[in-house]
Amino acid sequence: MRTATLFLLVSFLAAALTIPASAQPTSAVTDRPHHLMPVPSSVQRAEGRLAITREGTVAITGAAAADRRLRAAAERAIVRLERRTGIEFVTRGPVAEPAGAWLVVDVAAPGGALPALGDDESYSLTVTPTQARLSAPLVVGALRGLETVLQWVDGTGGAWGLDAVRIDDRPRFPWRGLMLDVARHWMPLDVVKRQLDGMAAVKLNVLHLHLTEDQGFRIETTRFPKLHQLGSDGLYFTQAQIREIVAYAADRGIRVVPEFDMPGHVTAWLVGHPELGSAPGPYTIERNWGIFDPAFDPTREALYPFLDRFFGEMVTLFPDAYLHIGGDENNGKHWNANPAITAFMKQRGFADAHALQAYFNQRVQKILQKHGKKMVGWDEVLHPDLPKDIVIHSWRGQKSLFEAARQGYSGILSNGWYIDLMQPTAQHYLVDPLPADSGLSEAEAARVLGGEATMWAEFVDPHTVDSRIWPRTAAIAERLWSPREVRDVGDMHRRLEAVSVQLEEHGLSHEAHTARMARRIAGARDTGALETLLGTVGPVKVYRRGQEFNKAYGRRPTQMTPLTRLVDAAIADPAATRAFTARVERLLGDPPAYDRDRDALRRTFDEWREAARALDRQADTRPLLHEARSLVADLGALADIGREALSRLGSGGGAGAAAWREASLARLKEAATPRVELEFGVIEPLQKLVEAAAR
Amino acid sequence: MRTATLFLLVSFLAAALTIPASAQPTSAVTDRPHHLMPVPSSVQRAEGRLAITREGTVAITGAAAADRRLRAAAERAIVRLERRTGIEFVTRGPVAEPAGAWLVVDVAAPGGALPALGDDESYSLTVTPTQARLSAPLVVGALRGLETVLQWVDGTGGAWGLDAVRIDDRPRFPWRGLMLDVARHWMPLDVVKRQLDGMAAVKLNVLHLHLTEDQGFRIETTRFPKLHQLGSDGLYFTQAQIREIVAYAADRGIRVVPEFDMPGHVTAWLVGHPELGSAPGPYTIERNWGIFDPAFDPTREALYPFLDRFFGEMVTLFPDAYLHIGGDENNGKHWNANPAITAFMKQRGFADAHALQAYFNQRVQKILQKHGKKMVGWDEVLHPDLPKDIVIHSWRGQKSLFEAARQGYSGILSNGWYIDLMQPTAQHYLVDPLPADSGLSEAEAARVLGGEATMWAEFVDPHTVDSRIWPRTAAIAERLWSPREVRDVGDMHRRLEAVSVQLEEHGLSHEAHTARMARRIAGARDTGALETLLGTVGPVKVYRRGQEFNKAYGRRPTQMTPLTRLVDAAIADPAATRAFTARVERLLGDPPAYDRDRDALRRTFDEWREAARALDRQADTRPLLHEARSLVADLGALADIGREALSRLGSGGGAGAAAWREASLARLKEAATPRVELEFGVIEPLQKLVEAAAR
Repeated sequence: MRTATLFLLVSFLAAALTIPASAQPTSAVTDRPHHLMPVPSSVQRAEGRLAITREGTVAITGAAAADRRLRAAAERAIVRLERRTGIEFVTRGPVAEPAGAWLVVDVAAPGGALPALGDDESYSLTVTPTQARLSAPLVVGALRGLETVLQWVDGTGGAWGLDAVRIDDRPRFPWRGLMLDVARHWMPLDVVKRQLDGMAAVKLNVLHLHLTEDQGFRIETTRFPKLHQLGSDGLYFTQAQIREIVAYAADRGIRVVPEFDMPGHVTAWLVGHPELGSAPGPYTIERNWGIFDPAFDPTREALYPFLDRFFGEMVTLFPDAYLHIGGDENNGKHWNANPAITAFMKQRGFADAHALQAYFNQRVQKILQKHGKKMVGWDEVLHPDLPKDIVIHSWRGQKSLFEAARQGYSGILSNGWYIDLMQPTAQHYLVDPLPADSGLSEAEAARVLGGEATMWAEFVDPHTVDSRIWPRTAAIAERLWSPREVRDVGDMHRRLEAVSVQLEEHGLSHEAHTARMARRIAGARDTGALETLLGTVGPVKVYRRGQEFNKAYGRRPTQMTPLTRLVDAAIADPAATRAFTARVERLLGDPPAYDRDRDALRRTFDEWREAARALDRQADTRPLLHEARSLVADLGALADIGREALSRLGSGGGAGAAAWREASLARLKEAATPRVELEFGVIEPLQKLVEAAAR
Repeated sequence: MRTATLFLLVSFLAAALTIPASAQPTSAVTDRPHHLMPVPSSVQRAEGRLAITREGTVAITGAAAADRRLRAAAERAIVRLERRTGIEFVTRGPVAEPAGAWLVVDVAAPGGALPALGDDESYSLTVTPTQARLSAPLVVGALRGLETVLQWVDGTGGAWGLDAVRIDDRPRFPWRGLMLDVARHWMPLDVVKRQLDGMAAVKLNVLHLHLTEDQGFRIETTRFPKLHQLGSDGLYFTQAQIREIVAYAADRGIRVVPEFDMPGHVTAWLVGHPELGSAPGPYTIERNWGIFDPAFDPTREALYPFLDRFFGEMVTLFPDAYLHIGGDENNGKHWNANPAITAFMKQRGFADAHALQAYFNQRVQKILQKHGKKMVGWDEVLHPDLPKDIVIHSWRGQKSLFEAARQGYSGILSNGWYIDLMQPTAQHYLVDPLPADSGLSEAEAARVLGGEATMWAEFVDPHTVDSRIWPRTAAIAERLWSPREVRDVGDMHRRLEAVSVQLEEHGLSHEAHTARMARRIAGARDTGALETLLGTVGPVKVYRRGQEFNKAYGRRPTQMTPLTRLVDAAIADPAATRAFTARVERLLGDPPAYDRDRDALRRTFDEWREAARALDRQADTRPLLHEARSLVADLGALADIGREALSRLGSGGGAGAAAWREASLARLKEAATPRVELEFGVIEPLQKLVEAAAR
């Protein structure tokens, strides 16, 4: 069902892709487009410009001037500015004296030593031709504002500086997160750190670490060392590394919310502690993907002291007020197969696994409460016996979130933001946790705290994860920060490109990804043809990758499957596909834009044809291309159909138009079949082109 | 003088660039070109091919079968093969049973637990259509052989496998190194580790770490903590990290030779321990580049117990038999200015600073000897009073090396391999530590142990260093490993491209470098125009970068200068410049290759012209392009000259040929002037084209 929705949405979006705002004529300085992402609450340009020179200093004033986080953030910002501009500042560290400073950061109070839900993250930035002034009530607001300053710096007139402006800004939602699954595929420290830098750059403030899964237990415990020793293949965060992550995040105003998924998704726990399971075991680390039977046995009283001791250790590592217990996708099979458990359920009058899980959740919630933590869990945990301070994490969608809000529960949204499903940026961008027509009262609406992009890790590893998270997550970050009305897809894409390139400053490899993977696959530097192909295709969407893998290789993908094939080089939302779609729309538009776009499309089709020829040759010696040979052949076929359509267009269809139309549409349909887990993203505009040409 | 030599050499090389061997017709299977680098001693192809399938195993047999290093290396090789091929092996770990294995690794003995100078690194590899067999006397030879196996795997016929072959291989020189300066610019652990992986891939076996400099003291010492605490800006290797580096290197058969440069280049030591210096101090970490006055005071007796205790600690970290004391570039100024020191010299009858330094070296050598270490030092340390087990490291050249060898000293070469000087690969490649006409006896020749590429770090940082080391160092590695006769530049470049792309598997960023930096500078994804420019230019060579910086910015570059400008995006040896040069040579050759190359050159000139236009527009908003505007204009001028030359070529010069020739050559000369530390690499072929066109 989701897939069908997707296709409708794509059609809609294709129509929405118009000329980017930057190309539209602007008359006044106040209309000049900017590259801020997320868009602030208010941006009012003024006349004039402030130059940045190497003599310029950054001053910190106000009651929080001595705050370590603030000074460290200012130093990082200065170094980033130096590296971006090539300017070597004479004075690098922040100074106390505002006179002569190009930037004054004025912060009224430090705020809490650690970021917390509901912190005042507001700030304002005023740039005049003589000075920029960033003001914030708390340090955390200044951190957000410093990112805006760095985005506002530009090279107008060939010289670095900031246009005069007044920006007032505050987030729409207080919980703006990225969930990173470090369990299905292990993600080491440096991967996490660079995501934190990227998150800070787009004003996200929660890193949700999915630390335990059937496929891996990824954190060191001193109380139960068999958990990480036997459940992780040696791939886990040491406690020192966890402390490093939490501190690194806090320095950037980001909370870290750990997730220990239970009572299902616990196979890796049970390898070292089978006595916690509902079946006798023994257990081994799961290597496949899916929903598995192993689960904690909620009827064993010994489970709760174990979890009490376990959480008692974990809370020393994670200072945030919230702790996520997952609670999703427990199939109940091992419960139903265990006579002791079914007897317990009968005795207690539990009708089904859901009721037993509710019992378990309540016990766990009390343990967390004892340790000073508020519980977060997926939709399934919602139950009237739980206190109102828990947070419902919704994979089901807004409806579920609103229902919880009406019942008095806070919630965050992830439905629509599953970035592992390889859907286009625009689709994620337009998802709103709280649309205008939510029907919620003000008090209920305030319980919708925000949301999280979720990076599930069946098909990503440390080498590909950046390309799956970024830049799409920046668009989600904008939805969570910016006013509801900010939803111009074309303008989002224009700004997203600038921000995406800036994100590389943090060592994120998303922009380098496709070319790097293409070199590996082609075994050569010249990857033009392969990049042309990769500009027209994307990985299959939603949950089809496993099936398509099976179709291609006759077996299931596992944790050990190398993620280095064409599908891993491809990205969810190639700019070339978007550009092609927009061009076809313009060409067929009203009024049609024949000349320029027709020529450009003709060149594109020539390029496809040439790429198909070159790749077919390369496939003789490159097996990872060889297995995609029919896809390559189809690229050539698409080129031929496109060229023919262009030549027929506007000529009343030409000879045999009906037969040609039918044959072409049939060929396009054939080409729409996924191969080696990839599918073309250009079929639909081509269909439209054929239809128009045959008319 | 070096610069003049360079230009002559470039002309010579241009002539040597012919059609790559892969394009030459081959008649027999035995002539098929391969992609091995370094080229083995002997490669004898046979008929047939061994397929690699997911059911295939790797077996380890022989007396060293249980060796941990060997098993770990086999496991790494299997994972690399999986990632390269996309094959998910059913059995991943090495097995004991050779039957059914596609690869059998048979090693006679473990050899020393740590790599040592003179280890037997030989191996042989026999591939038949049923099995590949890698045999080596010692584990370290098997490590080398596994790299050959990984390079020999290819995708002929669109399927992964190995052509039948018999390879016998051993290194020409026992000391094959890379010196990494982690002092002038700090290089953290991950940078070092990925260089070690790259080194192992091309069979280098010495990592020489330049740990201390005027600009930084980069290793933790517990005995004298002020050294790293005050001398490093907090950027140093902890002892745990050093142990990690040494172990990581040893696992790959690589020795780690630490260098503590003295008695000059010690400013960073003196910040914490001014009492060791020849001037009263106080000292601060040096931020500029060059040769500075601070030096240890060799006349203070307290210096030697200090060094004794210092080295006593360091030898616990570095197990290799050799330790480098630098000993270069001590200008003697602080010695001559210190009356106590001049008095000491007078009393001892030391004629000059060199004599005092010899005295110091002898004292240090005795300390090292006491700690079981053999001393390595630059040419300057050579002195008849030193024992014959020291190693002379020659920046001066072969002559100096041969002289040492005649005196009974072993030596290694770095002259010609200063990869920081941004010279082309071919120039480094043709440098031979021991040419056939060395005039040395066999015993003397055996004292030439090999050499090291030196990565000095004035103008590199962790973000750019990969692009400076690789792929050029792979060509130097080949010189040090392969037979003397292997020196076909065209074939080297053909193989180097394949190896360079494979080196990315280790996370090395050299191939991604230019595009990544170009995106940063252009602030956009489309960097076609900028990459075109960067394909025609390189950073100024040898020691001109400092001067050119000064010319461009009116001040000296320092340790704090951001390395993010155009010059940092550029590389020493762009493939586009080589291809252009080769094309012009062919066009003007005998017989001339008019049609194909004329068309290709015309397209190149069109591309230059278009890039110049686009970059000129972009410069309006991109200051790092704006400052290169005259270079951009010159790219357009070169394009115009080139197009005009093509149209005149073969027509007897056309109208006004002499005047056109003169004006064009003058314009080319003007364009040859470096700007923003960059210079064109395409001037000389254009000069030839103009000369030929005017004829």
